[in-house]
Amino acid sequence: MSSGRPWFRREGLALLTDLYELTMMAGHWKDGRTNQAASFEYFFRTLPPHAGFAVTAGLDPFLDYLENLRFEEDDTDYLRTLDLFDEAFLAFLRDFRPKITVYAIPEGSLVFPFEPIVRIEGTLFETQLVETALLNFMNYQTLIATKAARICLAANGEPVMEFGLRRAHGPDGGLSGSRAAHIGGCASTSNVLAGKAYGIPIAGTHAHSWVMSFENELEAFRAFARHYPQRCVLLVDTYDTVKSGIPNAIKVFQEMRADGRSIRPAIRLDSGDLAKLSKIAWRMMQEAGLQDPLIVASNDLDEDLIADLKRQGAKINAWGVGTHLITAYDSPALNGVYKLVALYDGNAWAPRMKLTSNIEKATDPGRKQVVRYFEAEGHPLCDMMCLAEESWPESGVIEGRVRTRPHHRIRIEGATRAEALLQPVFLEGRRTAPRRPIAEIRDYARAQIAALPDEYKRLRNPEIYQVFLSNRIGEIKDQMLALTTGVT
Amino acid sequence: MSSGRPWFRREGLALLTDLYELTMMAGHWKDGRTNQAASFEYFFRTLPPHAGFAVTAGLDPFLDYLENLRFEEDDTDYLRTLDLFDEAFLAFLRDFRPKITVYAIPEGSLVFPFEPIVRIEGTLFETQLVETALLNFMNYQTLIATKAARICLAANGEPVMEFGLRRAHGPDGGLSGSRAAHIGGCASTSNVLAGKAYGIPIAGTHAHSWVMSFENELEAFRAFARHYPQRCVLLVDTYDTVKSGIPNAIKVFQEMRADGRSIRPAIRLDSGDLAKLSKIAWRMMQEAGLQDPLIVASNDLDEDLIADLKRQGAKINAWGVGTHLITAYDSPALNGVYKLVALYDGNAWAPRMKLTSNIEKATDPGRKQVVRYFEAEGHPLCDMMCLAEESWPESGVIEGRVRTRPHHRIRIEGATRAEALLQPVFLEGRRTAPRRPIAEIRDYARAQIAALPDEYKRLRNPEIYQVFLSNRIGEIKDQMLALTTGVT
Repeated sequence: MSSGRPWFRREGLALLTDLYELTMMAGHWKDGRTNQAASFEYFFRTLPPHAGFAVTAGLDPFLDYLENLRFEEDDTDYLRTLDLFDEAFLAFLRDFRPKITVYAIPEGSLVFPFEPIVRIEGTLFETQLVETALLNFMNYQTLIATKAARICLAANGEPVMEFGLRRAHGPDGGLSGSRAAHIGGCASTSNVLAGKAYGIPIAGTHAHSWVMSFENELEAFRAFARHYPQRCVLLVDTYDTVKSGIPNAIKVFQEMRADGRSIRPAIRLDSGDLAKLSKIAWRMMQEAGLQDPLIVASNDLDEDLIADLKRQGAKINAWGVGTHLITAYDSPALNGVYKLVALYDGNAWAPRMKLTSNIEKATDPGRKQVVRYFEAEGHPLCDMMCLAEESWPESGVIEGRVRTRPHHRIRIEGATRAEALLQPVFLEGRRTAPRRPIAEIRDYARAQIAALPDEYKRLRNPEIYQVFLSNRIGEIKDQMLALTTGVT
Repeated sequence: MSSGRPWFRREGLALLTDLYELTMMAGHWKDGRTNQAASFEYFFRTLPPHAGFAVTAGLDPFLDYLENLRFEEDDTDYLRTLDLFDEAFLAFLRDFRPKITVYAIPEGSLVFPFEPIVRIEGTLFETQLVETALLNFMNYQTLIATKAARICLAANGEPVMEFGLRRAHGPDGGLSGSRAAHIGGCASTSNVLAGKAYGIPIAGTHAHSWVMSFENELEAFRAFARHYPQRCVLLVDTYDTVKSGIPNAIKVFQEMRADGRSIRPAIRLDSGDLAKLSKIAWRMMQEAGLQDPLIVASNDLDEDLIADLKRQGAKINAWGVGTHLITAYDSPALNGVYKLVALYDGNAWAPRMKLTSNIEKATDPGRKQVVRYFEAEGHPLCDMMCLAEESWPESGVIEGRVRTRPHHRIRIEGATRAEALLQPVFLEGRRTAPRRPIAEIRDYARAQIAALPDEYKRLRNPEIYQVFLSNRIGEIKDQMLALTTGVT
């Protein structure tokens, strides 16, 4: 019954929304404003702490949700119990199919504050409905892909394994999180369901309980080596790492070699001083003739601790990261929002903006495109937000306006190539971009990060990447601000 | 097709596990250790920051998972591709049904560090398999129920609405989080799916976009009031709260009253200085003859900010809390673990313990019961962990041992009643405790929190609730520690 339609295909999620989306939707419907077209954009205002860039993720699952978005009878039966909606509206919901159009920056791209990552167009009605789900999918996965990218930068090319499922926020925190972590650069996950659902490589060793369930550690190691000779990573810290764990592991690796198996000796350290223990383990294995060991470390790692362990010369060459990655522990929410940027007045799109006494929080009006400029060596140089219908220079000197002071001009030299980041992925209710294999998204992200200059990739105090408005949007924003008194 | 078997029933989650659980399981199976009985316990070592207690949650969803735990053909098809498991084991998995027995402290109970919250017994094999899912369900929901309880303590009886879906960790972070927040004391959620799935009351107002989609704010308010006269909470901060939002809201409430509707005037503040604005709004509404207004505040609230706003006399009487609640922002993971505590040797349970050089982290050996003692007024006095098969005194002077120094005696006076907290909920693969209505769990939690003395409920630096070992476990632990050199 369930085969072929697994739960992670994002079916049955029509009610995954805040109540107010439905009450507003019903209000628009009852007022006959079912044809009012609206354009909304998704963006975030601040990067996670210390980050110089973010890696966008969550789009494909959101498009799955959109494709499957319909109100089933049990959904409208439930809504009826709320005593908020009349029968005509519920009947309308049963027949409702979104005719939404979606433009998006591809998953795995590097994105920066205030850039529209997703633009959604359709009736006011349907664009409102999907807000909560969009924010839910994109905020979490972008947060985790970004955290993973930072951890992988710290690991400096050595493999990072994501081990977070037991501390993830529910089953789907694990599943979506594993997906995002892989996009951000993790080599593998321990989460078997994520392996099945998304084709992510999966990895794992054994637990302390394996060792404790045998008479002694040596027997436990021998048994594990017998069952998994080609994937034999032995956890050496159940009793005493130096006196018992490492010597027993060495003994087993030597026995395997004596049996003619060409294995790479591999251990995992999960407690104690990882720098010191890894050096001791490395030396003991070298002395025992076991060259080039794989030494995996885990235990509350994050990018700072990995960088510090490497600074101290730890002999660790693979990293298992759980809690801090899967929850983005130091800042577990991305502050992405979804704002109305234009309404269609019957002839043309009229820009809208949210005013506030804080100019930094005022939105940028109009349906936008993001143009990324590159310099001669292929590194990204700056991003310009322009109106979707504007044309933009392809190279040379790029001129625009400062977001927060749109009368101030900005001028960037040295652009040799331009790339429009927002691409159509869903047209009037139908998916137009195929679901991308996760390995492709991950490769794409890796290439993007590689091309980003080092100054944006520092783990602390990175340079701020320049994002500005086109002259045209700058002028519109300036005018709209001028119409409002009290906004400076 | 999907109706009647919704995805939140926790089907199709057999692979929601770390790979090593399956490799260890296959190892035990191949070694013929399929009948070795084991007992594992779930507990956490530290409370969330500043918390004096935790509220347990996540059990019923975990039992749903256990009831539905079976490996479907597409699961074993996937496992086959890993080249780790042989056909005989995969065939065995297809027929596998867990015969697990589960003892648990009921959801909504107050729990403390090191107490077994769930004890799982069965073959080593199956008890190992369910580790990851148990940790995933229990860690997250207990974390959020505890956070919700703290926020509700700060709100001091005023309703707290959970608005977190857009910042939750994926769809299920929202769903499981809404459930846990309600158990912890939240009055309602904005998450419609959580309302449908669990029967949680749902609530919501409208967004800034509702206002922006009308010609002006007054028209937007009038339209909303017309559609939802009985649930009309007007969001007053889209343009200028004091000059426009509050006066327009007052006008609409007066119009509604003039139409003969007996409504309670209600507004929501979502930005600016909530203390100051709420006082201004209150005064303006009083002056306009609108007594007893409902003033809802939202915008990055947590328990500290709520307590501080109340300290400043804010005229807020309902609280919308999102990001900080649904992610447990200041510490987004509970460090719960699952440890082997006993193996059956054919005649009796032999206690096991995980040794470590840090006595605080050494586990407490043996299959345990938790006995809570109450004093004459009905307040909890202390908790004692004893062996499951031990008898314990019902009242009077209670004697036991300190966890970290098990040769040290402890003596508590004044117990008038004892309650055994761990109860059987699943016997040899079959659920024996019915699924509890969420309202019942929430009422139970509320009564527990009400009975807890104030000193454990301070938001900062609460008193530490006493949890100790029975003399019998203390003696066993002392002996097991003595057998190990180097542990003090």
